[in-house]
Amino acid sequence: MSKILETVPNFSEGRNRETIEAIADCFRGQDGVKLLDYSADKDHNRSVFTVIGEPQALRDAVIQAAGVALERIDLRLHKGQHPRMGAVDVIPFIPIRDCSLEEADQIAREVGQALGQQLGQPVFLYERSATRPNRENLSDIRRGEFEGMAEKMKGEGWAPDFGPPTIHESGGVTAVGARMPLVAYNINLGTDKLEIAQAIARKVRHSNGGLRYVKAMGVMLEDRHQAQVSMNITDYTQSSIYRVFELVKMEAARYGVAVVGSELIGLIPLRALVDSAEYYLQMEGFSMDQVLETRL
Amino acid sequence: MSKILETVPNFSEGRNRETIEAIADCFRGQDGVKLLDYSADKDHNRSVFTVIGEPQALRDAVIQAAGVALERIDLRLHKGQHPRMGAVDVIPFIPIRDCSLEEADQIAREVGQALGQQLGQPVFLYERSATRPNRENLSDIRRGEFEGMAEKMKGEGWAPDFGPPTIHESGGVTAVGARMPLVAYNINLGTDKLEIAQAIARKVRHSNGGLRYVKAMGVMLEDRHQAQVSMNITDYTQSSIYRVFELVKMEAARYGVAVVGSELIGLIPLRALVDSAEYYLQMEGFSMDQVLETRL
Repeated sequence: MSKILETVPNFSEGRNRETIEAIADCFRGQDGVKLLDYSADKDHNRSVFTVIGEPQALRDAVIQAAGVALERIDLRLHKGQHPRMGAVDVIPFIPIRDCSLEEADQIAREVGQALGQQLGQPVFLYERSATRPNRENLSDIRRGEFEGMAEKMKGEGWAPDFGPPTIHESGGVTAVGARMPLVAYNINLGTDKLEIAQAIARKVRHSNGGLRYVKAMGVMLEDRHQAQVSMNITDYTQSSIYRVFELVKMEAARYGVAVVGSELIGLIPLRALVDSAEYYLQMEGFSMDQVLETRL
Repeated sequence: MSKILETVPNFSEGRNRETIEAIADCFRGQDGVKLLDYSADKDHNRSVFTVIGEPQALRDAVIQAAGVALERIDLRLHKGQHPRMGAVDVIPFIPIRDCSLEEADQIAREVGQALGQQLGQPVFLYERSATRPNRENLSDIRRGEFEGMAEKMKGEGWAPDFGPPTIHESGGVTAVGARMPLVAYNINLGTDKLEIAQAIARKVRHSNGGLRYVKAMGVMLEDRHQAQVSMNITDYTQSSIYRVFELVKMEAARYGVAVVGSELIGLIPLRALVDSAEYYLQMEGFSMDQVLETRL
């Protein structure tokens, strides 16, 4: 398979092993689909699956898994610490290789339509698939949860993108959408003053007027006596890592504080790093096709 | 195939189509071997093949091709502009994926031994496989060419690494060795003074006391009215691109000249770019395993 898409569907079942395995079975032994990981949390009463695959094959497997969830999970009986609104709660699609955000969005819409038409589940498109601004954030859609959703959907602007206009009796509603891979990026400061990291976080994050695709907060690394600006970059192609780094460095300088290091948590798309090299080396006319996958 | 090695063997035949195709046939339709490109030059009377493959399969194909060359090419009749010393003149092995320089060196030695023992061709190990310092550079080995080689090999320190102690009557001698992928990297200066680029080139290159794996010269980009420091980095894992870039910038500053851009010619190993991102972003605890091959 050359085009690779990822999905990380969340289901509102973290206790019944049979149901969790029945969902996992939809992703196992399918041509063009690979179940990378899954885990269930009893307190949250929720399970999360990480699956990659060829876009169409992945789409079909997810639709099948949603069908299993709607058959087996009854939200009227569901209790858990994690907020939730659907038996299959949220299905993000993330482009991984040779695959654009537009293609991920197309698959998200096809899955949304299938859930609505074939399974009678109302679907809200969210993140980069959202059809209106107040549906970009999952938390805005999920507010009110399963119990409040029937009432919420009667209100202005809360008709679903696919499926019936009110909740599925036992399955609630589902959010489906495309998003870019998240980059978890932290910058360590040469200070033990948490308030400086917090002040910098406010300046660089989108919610306070900073970069469009940056979420940030200040945290304290107790064992290192260092304050840290801890960030999520939700679209590294638009809010580049080097720009985030230089902006934090600039704001830190205002307090006479140096940046002592940065760290990337988990996987980082090749392109995100290459963009930074391209910037600092002032590269002209560079193309990603020039990159040879030598990891030596 | 997961481990990938590259070889770029040079043969002293650029005119006889039949011979060139007979060599190419050794690389075509073989399991685990892929002929990426080949070209012949009539003036140089020389052909160059670019082949990648699984190390053992590539080794066997190259030995076979050397056999064909020794059967068909007679250097006593060979005339061409390019210096040469053997029917199969030089065979470099370059690690490309999941393959170390040590593994490339091992294959080079196996090929050298086969040429010596099976084909009666004297072999000098060169570049990173060299068994003494004066054999690292191909030009030192090739000095005297085919016509002077028999005499040269009588001298102190010119016994071959494999094969008989004097030249193959019609096939001369061959250089075989491992090397890192070359990175061709140019830095453009905000000046039209060629002598500044030349002065900087002398400061950064190995031959004049600069970085160990850097070859450099000053050239003039006539259409852009810019002088350029044009470089080959022969081991980007030791002489990193960002260090080369910063050193050139520093030397340019001494003339009040700015760096206006840089360019990478041809393929560039992923790791070479990631190293630069890692440096500038002051990354801590980063591993190449974190890199996801998303080219978006």
